Amino acid sequence: MLYYTKLYIYVLWKGRDPMAIRFNEVTDEVVQALQAIVGEKYVKTDEEYRTKYQTDEEGNSYFFHKPEVVVFPKTTEEVAAIVCLANKKLIPITPRSAGTGVACGAIPIYHGIVLALERMNKIITLDAENMYAVCQTGVLTGVLQEEARKHGLLYAGDPSSSESCQLGGNVASNAGGNKAVKYGTTRHQIYSLKVVTPTGDIVTVGGRLAKCSTGLCLEQLIAGSEGILGVITEVTVRLKPLPPYNFNMVCVFEKDDDAFALPNKILKAGIDPTSIEYMDKEALQMTCKFLDMTMPHVQEGCSYVIVTVETFDEDELDRKMAVLCDLAENNGSIDEFEADKRIWKLRKQFAEAARNIDIMYQAEDFVVPLDKIHDITGQLPELRQKYDLYCVTVAHIGDGNIHVLPLNHRGLSPEAWHEKIQAFHRDLFPRVYALGGKMSGEHGIGYKKRDDFIRCTSKEEVQLIRAIKKAWDPNGIMNPGKIIPLEEA
Amino acid sequence: MLYYTKLYIYVLWKGRDPMAIRFNEVTDEVVQALQAIVGEKYVKTDEEYRTKYQTDEEGNSYFFHKPEVVVFPKTTEEVAAIVCLANKKLIPITPRSAGTGVACGAIPIYHGIVLALERMNKIITLDAENMYAVCQTGVLTGVLQEEARKHGLLYAGDPSSSESCQLGGNVASNAGGNKAVKYGTTRHQIYSLKVVTPTGDIVTVGGRLAKCSTGLCLEQLIAGSEGILGVITEVTVRLKPLPPYNFNMVCVFEKDDDAFALPNKILKAGIDPTSIEYMDKEALQMTCKFLDMTMPHVQEGCSYVIVTVETFDEDELDRKMAVLCDLAENNGSIDEFEADKRIWKLRKQFAEAARNIDIMYQAEDFVVPLDKIHDITGQLPELRQKYDLYCVTVAHIGDGNIHVLPLNHRGLSPEAWHEKIQAFHRDLFPRVYALGGKMSGEHGIGYKKRDDFIRCTSKEEVQLIRAIKKAWDPNGIMNPGKIIPLEEA
Repeated sequence: MLYYTKLYIYVLWKGRDPMAIRFNEVTDEVVQALQAIVGEKYVKTDEEYRTKYQTDEEGNSYFFHKPEVVVFPKTTEEVAAIVCLANKKLIPITPRSAGTGVACGAIPIYHGIVLALERMNKIITLDAENMYAVCQTGVLTGVLQEEARKHGLLYAGDPSSSESCQLGGNVASNAGGNKAVKYGTTRHQIYSLKVVTPTGDIVTVGGRLAKCSTGLCLEQLIAGSEGILGVITEVTVRLKPLPPYNFNMVCVFEKDDDAFALPNKILKAGIDPTSIEYMDKEALQMTCKFLDMTMPHVQEGCSYVIVTVETFDEDELDRKMAVLCDLAENNGSIDEFEADKRIWKLRKQFAEAARNIDIMYQAEDFVVPLDKIHDITGQLPELRQKYDLYCVTVAHIGDGNIHVLPLNHRGLSPEAWHEKIQAFHRDLFPRVYALGGKMSGEHGIGYKKRDDFIRCTSKEEVQLIRAIKKAWDPNGIMNPGKIIPLEEA
Repeated sequence: MLYYTKLYIYVLWKGRDPMAIRFNEVTDEVVQALQAIVGEKYVKTDEEYRTKYQTDEEGNSYFFHKPEVVVFPKTTEEVAAIVCLANKKLIPITPRSAGTGVACGAIPIYHGIVLALERMNKIITLDAENMYAVCQTGVLTGVLQEEARKHGLLYAGDPSSSESCQLGGNVASNAGGNKAVKYGTTRHQIYSLKVVTPTGDIVTVGGRLAKCSTGLCLEQLIAGSEGILGVITEVTVRLKPLPPYNFNMVCVFEKDDDAFALPNKILKAGIDPTSIEYMDKEALQMTCKFLDMTMPHVQEGCSYVIVTVETFDEDELDRKMAVLCDLAENNGSIDEFEADKRIWKLRKQFAEAARNIDIMYQAEDFVVPLDKIHDITGQLPELRQKYDLYCVTVAHIGDGNIHVLPLNHRGLSPEAWHEKIQAFHRDLFPRVYALGGKMSGEHGIGYKKRDDFIRCTSKEEVQLIRAIKKAWDPNGIMNPGKIIPLEEA
């Protein structure tokens, strides 16, 4: 009887997911134990904190879940002690760095502990001579970029949110961004990771090595695992020499299929671009209107492809620019001009402009092979009409990574908007996968796309993921319910 | 009584490792089942085959173990059927592509089945327009390189054994080689893998995508896992545009610390070299003698650093060559000359020259941070003397990857040579790890360095590896005893 009552109370209290009954509540005793680890000041149970940490970048209240406690550790050892405690007490832990993710990866869907890593914000080492940095997980990506730049070096991870996001979250979601064509995504910047495992061990994986065939490549398994395999507390990253010369060129297209065909031609010509970005006419018009700007060819309904090239030599830059101009003109570009500050303002303020229409918008980030971009974007008008969506599109087209943003222009309720997006996804993602694509190029799966992920991924692959998760996290406490559900359906 | 007798016979028959009792023998019934899967012709139990497949590139008979049966499947489905059978019957499987590995990774140390993948040698697709190829696991690396070249493309994986090694083995060991400074190792060439799991499922992981944050990065976990997590049957690789211009320059050094300091300076200057190779005076003198060649400065006891640069533009090449010359001259190089065919002959025939002294030689391939190369090589004279070793050294110094080759110049017996190398490793590897290095940069751990690996790796990391292995391969049949022992000590 007691058992059933307890079960009933849990289910009632924990909300939607009866799986939550596997977890225990954060009791006063647990709070005291947490205070003993990090100090009273850094354990927060008041409503203000519980509300602040109920979401990350997500704007739809449908997804919000309050933590029972927010803890702010300062060291790897403190993190390990917290994880040990949570593992012993069966309390879920949600690691969080800046909370700039858009997949609900840092939302504590089973409540429990939010592990806020923002105090771990030191660059421990920046060795300019040997081109690497050792950073705590909560270092702001933009700060690392700036510190590297001061030494004539480049940290090549460059998510659009670099001003506000943190390195640990970048690694956990394998963040992409604007320099991925040349330098790869965050996983490609990693030498090694210090990690607290779900059972509370501290382990360093990888090494400051240009190559390695020593054991399993655990650092690449953990990178992009969205916190389900442990808490990243320290990251050693590669730095690269900063190319002193660069140009940014806008190529203007009337026809999108011409725009989408350009990246492959650029890559084959050996131009080695740093980035190839795209903004469609709706994105340009919306952002120009938001910023009250006028830009060439925008009113005519053209789209932009913005190409960045960096070199160590000025002649090389000039030559590459000439090759690029020829390529663009021979492939449908009606105008080319230098991308000045206005362009970057447009690109960076685009999300703000979208948010201005409604805080609830869906940032898709599916990715397809470069030769399939037009095949998928060509299907979008049909989908927009079918689901009555107003969409704007920007894309890292050098990577095949497309940000279609359906905007809540009808002002639907959180539930209704969520349902509409669910229906859109059930239609969109099978089309993406049929072209050899996947649903996330850089945002991750988190909680938001978990059911879509299960639906679109082979059961064999899901089994392999689940097997690792269970083997490393037998109690399932570490960011539970992200990427895959807690238990098999 | 029957049980104990059976146990005794097993232990006696299986040899050194009593763990082998977990496995069953290959019975006539199993042989017939294998014949039913691949055809009678492709199941070999005769002594000739058992002897041929008792080793890979390993020359020391101490490591040899005969398989009970060698099976030659033609398709992924046949591989899956064989693995299902082995998993059900508890028979160990050792996957093998070309058998060119030097870590005893393809030696069937628990006997059982050798899965010889050499018939799976088709390039299924080579799409020049979109720069990728889909290859069966047994495609010769050199064939893929050549086919790509015909289309003006580059397959950038380039182990020294490219003429004889196969793609699946390259992926399994994360083979490195000569182009890794610019293009990375084999793992960096991979888009996706088709794999047969240890329980016989067929799964495709990864995708033909420039970036991805969708689920766990299983393709990078499997790459470099040396067959303990499954059988790679198909590999989709990136191809790159082939740079039309290149130079190869030899810089001659009297002092090794000058030679070792050069790579970092080259990298920082933005020269973006394809490779930076090194041969020490002993390696040069041994190979020149073997080939009856005379080369500049070799008799004076100098070492060579060989730098390759590739570009898409002739002017760029000239400029980079000038920068490199200045760098070399300002940093201790006493002479520079073009690396013509003689140099590549030297480099490629070096292993042959070593083998000419004795078939048993130990190819070390430890890797250290670039700034630690001199710190470790500086300790080698002491170690050579201590263990009475005659060593020659070549190195991918652009990667910090050092091939010190102790040669069996005293003609020791297999057991005595093995013991000497074991003692050497117990002394050498802790020094490598103390500098932030690891024991293998490109060869892998296999069976040969397994005990060293356990000794030098944190118990937490070993636990994580073991947890994945057990979760994916509950019966432990897939290349058992490689990287980690079958059971905890």
